Amino acid sequence: MTQMIEARAGRVTVQMQKVAEKEKKELELIRAGVAGGTVVVPANKNHLNLEPCGIGSGLKTKVNANIGTSPAFPDIDKELVKLTAALSAGADAVMDLSTGGDLDQLRRRILAVSPAAVGTVPVYQAAVEARERHGSIIGMTADELFAVIEKQAGDGVDFITVHCGVTMAVLDRLRQQSRITGIVSRGGAFLAGWMLHHGRENPLYEQYDRLLDMARRYDVTLSLGDGLRPGCLADATDRAQIQELIILGEMIERARAQGVQAMVEGPGHVPLNQVIANVQMQKSLCRDAPFYVLGPLVTDVAPGYDHITSAVGGALAAAAGADFLCYVTPSEHLGLPGPDDVREGVMAARVAAHAADIAKGVPGAWEWDREMAAARKALDWERQISLAIDPEKARRFRAERNPQGTEECTMCGEFCAMKLIGKYLGKEMATCF
Amino acid sequence: MTQMIEARAGRVTVQMQKVAEKEKKELELIRAGVAGGTVVVPANKNHLNLEPCGIGSGLKTKVNANIGTSPAFPDIDKELVKLTAALSAGADAVMDLSTGGDLDQLRRRILAVSPAAVGTVPVYQAAVEARERHGSIIGMTADELFAVIEKQAGDGVDFITVHCGVTMAVLDRLRQQSRITGIVSRGGAFLAGWMLHHGRENPLYEQYDRLLDMARRYDVTLSLGDGLRPGCLADATDRAQIQELIILGEMIERARAQGVQAMVEGPGHVPLNQVIANVQMQKSLCRDAPFYVLGPLVTDVAPGYDHITSAVGGALAAAAGADFLCYVTPSEHLGLPGPDDVREGVMAARVAAHAADIAKGVPGAWEWDREMAAARKALDWERQISLAIDPEKARRFRAERNPQGTEECTMCGEFCAMKLIGKYLGKEMATCF
Repeated sequence: MTQMIEARAGRVTVQMQKVAEKEKKELELIRAGVAGGTVVVPANKNHLNLEPCGIGSGLKTKVNANIGTSPAFPDIDKELVKLTAALSAGADAVMDLSTGGDLDQLRRRILAVSPAAVGTVPVYQAAVEARERHGSIIGMTADELFAVIEKQAGDGVDFITVHCGVTMAVLDRLRQQSRITGIVSRGGAFLAGWMLHHGRENPLYEQYDRLLDMARRYDVTLSLGDGLRPGCLADATDRAQIQELIILGEMIERARAQGVQAMVEGPGHVPLNQVIANVQMQKSLCRDAPFYVLGPLVTDVAPGYDHITSAVGGALAAAAGADFLCYVTPSEHLGLPGPDDVREGVMAARVAAHAADIAKGVPGAWEWDREMAAARKALDWERQISLAIDPEKARRFRAERNPQGTEECTMCGEFCAMKLIGKYLGKEMATCF
Repeated sequence: MTQMIEARAGRVTVQMQKVAEKEKKELELIRAGVAGGTVVVPANKNHLNLEPCGIGSGLKTKVNANIGTSPAFPDIDKELVKLTAALSAGADAVMDLSTGGDLDQLRRRILAVSPAAVGTVPVYQAAVEARERHGSIIGMTADELFAVIEKQAGDGVDFITVHCGVTMAVLDRLRQQSRITGIVSRGGAFLAGWMLHHGRENPLYEQYDRLLDMARRYDVTLSLGDGLRPGCLADATDRAQIQELIILGEMIERARAQGVQAMVEGPGHVPLNQVIANVQMQKSLCRDAPFYVLGPLVTDVAPGYDHITSAVGGALAAAAGADFLCYVTPSEHLGLPGPDDVREGVMAARVAAHAADIAKGVPGAWEWDREMAAARKALDWERQISLAIDPEKARRFRAERNPQGTEECTMCGEFCAMKLIGKYLGKEMATCF
């Protein structure tokens, strides 16, 4: 029984209760959202220490942090440090994208300690193992790919990225056009390479019912990957990308028909003036399935600042209806992130998510800012710091920049506008000045 | 003769020529923009080493960096280090907002070395001197304020913030409502306190013609300050703010009638879903005068990350038509920024400005991203680094995160999608994959 099947039967699960409490929403709203597929609660039956969160329409925008080894950095302990950094920074979910070292061990250790939902991209492990076993990713068999999915589902992975929409028809669309950066999704590239080499359809599409069956047994939420996502602004919102999105809309309906929870992944590199259209298109084509975007990055030229390019696009996307932001770190396009990058990436995405939640009227979002404004007016520094999205950083900056510990901050000092207005105008005008 | 008077007489100045070259625009477009007041070229006759830039409709979005001492940090040399940081990071203009130490000396040293336009807020110096001379800001006389303006104009300041719209009528509007953070503009607070204490109209409003006369003599561009800008999301877009904007629209028309260049300053703390309305309102009420926004910050709760909250709001504002972004540093709301904060602040604002320039179709913006995309596809790291908005940071990150110097980055390593697609599919598909 998945959360969706339970919800459709009119039953409220413990997981839905926890989501309702966290979101301060009526239980019935959560149940109805899960039943209709506009909300997912990634919660694998085998992820025992999970504190579930809901993702989707009407809920707070959530943030995912990608961690995981690479061939150059296979050290498990370093990834566990990054896991701690992501969770302490407030990530709602983490994805283990490892491709180096002992993949099974790291995934299991992450699941053992993470109360946040854990996602993976099983085709990564399948590709790594195919290389070891057959000498090439091309050597991977469909059964081997499904065996990895089954193993990861059995371990307790809450959601998996599956690039079911990278079909022969979509690759044909891609052939009818040009792109600068081609396919930049790793999973999409593995599958497209495999398909074109063998001249065979994508097994995740061809055997989608087999995938749905596995997902249903463990209640793994499918995150339908966008293998054709644009890798640069010039490739954004092209025919190949939207063709894949159409296919993903069909996959969403088939997942819902089987009681399998599913969301849709989205771009990527998108110019600011196309971000809203991308969200509206997904919501329409995919029948309001939760939308999980990577960024979007609103320019290609800012390596070192891609947490910022993504915060811009993410805020705009989430305000327009995107539900789940995959963080991007300052290290994007330059190398595997370290723990500080992870922290900065999560914080930037949380800023974007919260700014969007205010804009879309998520209950509670506005109140947080009101409290901060009142604390600022009162020059109540302890309250400002405790209300800050990153209290530790706020405290450190304040201490470093105000060694004398004066009441005002050191930008204006005795010329503090808030203080002056109070001094000159007295209390009777305090409500307006 | 101001740039505007020259332009109206059909003459193209050296400054307009340089702007046209930088913007890759027809000379006539720049001249017509300056003549009509939709473009300003801040260029004080006494700022001898100025490399002028244009601000306004159809031009690249520009970035300003605020520097300057405070009572707690009066050291001139530290501010000159921050000036260098701002200029090397690519700021188009700097404002000296000093309120501590030797104000005249610092301003003159900044003007002597800055090829970028330099702005000030003369009421700061007038307030500091009034405190020294009369024991209180309240003791300032209108003549003293104008004497400071004249001195700063004579020194070569290219643009000055003047809060001409903080009028008795606007303060009456403010009394008819409530606000959480009241007046947060320092200049606005000085003037409002002075006005209410003395029961007298704002001298910058009452003697606006005197101000216009001074501005015209030196060709100082007026930056009409928003003394009523909101200091928190809850105060945004309220009646007091818009009342002031209406007055500023009138001031713009009077400046234009006298051949004085003028732009309008805007908020501040604004929820994401009100940013576009704020820009459209300014453009309409102020007859398409250049719009200079501070942020906007799209949430109040992120001290330590306000360069990011501002990049989100600034990108959206500039895409909607704002012309000039005042940076906000990570230190905002916590203390006076240091050189690293200045660098991060300028870069975040430049990211926002460029993302907006792509969205609004500024010539050349799109091409930069296309070149980066091609360099990425080619795994040409030297080219990627040289095209990066911050080549030094990109180079450092790449070196730190890829000690072995492999061709791929260390995030994907041998599983690099761009490389795999090339390997599996061969060159004949290179244009689409």
